[in-house]
Amino acid sequence: MARFMDVHHGMKGITAEQLDQAHHADLAIEKEEGVHFERAWADPESGTVYCLSEAPSAEAVQRIHTRAGHPADEVHEVPLEA
Amino acid sequence: MARFMDVHHGMKGITAEQLDQAHHADLAIEKEEGVHFERAWADPESGTVYCLSEAPSAEAVQRIHTRAGHPADEVHEVPLEA
Repeated sequence: MARFMDVHHGMKGITAEQLDQAHHADLAIEKEEGVHFERAWADPESGTVYCLSEAPSAEAVQRIHTRAGHPADEVHEVPLEA
Repeated sequence: MARFMDVHHGMKGITAEQLDQAHHADLAIEKEEGVHFERAWADPESGTVYCLSEAPSAEAVQRIHTRAGHPADEVHEVPLEA
């Protein structure tokens, strides 16, 4: 397992409810790829969403996001943490 | 107080020790601007660093990062969290 930060652009105006729904759509199926989405943060002004996860691979993160209807624009493995 | 995610690019090859040193340089002076840097994650391959903080403003976050020697390329307020 490794840790990942993925980024979604183009989400201007996203609401708390939409972020919650998107996050729960991920949580509902994440186990099928061995992924766990820990937290998500959104900036409605710039339309950016950041998701922190633990997963076997970046591809597994992206498969869950894609199946949940919101593929990420970037998925970065973040092996370093402070 | 609000929550912020800031992003640093161009950090290819950053090591765990360098991330720790940078984070501690922030922590050493953050109180002077009422900022608290909670966590930082780095992807040495793409050279991207993400920092999560609580702060009175994006400008306060940037002033601490700049004084610590590593201004951020982006500072996003992230009022939504899931």
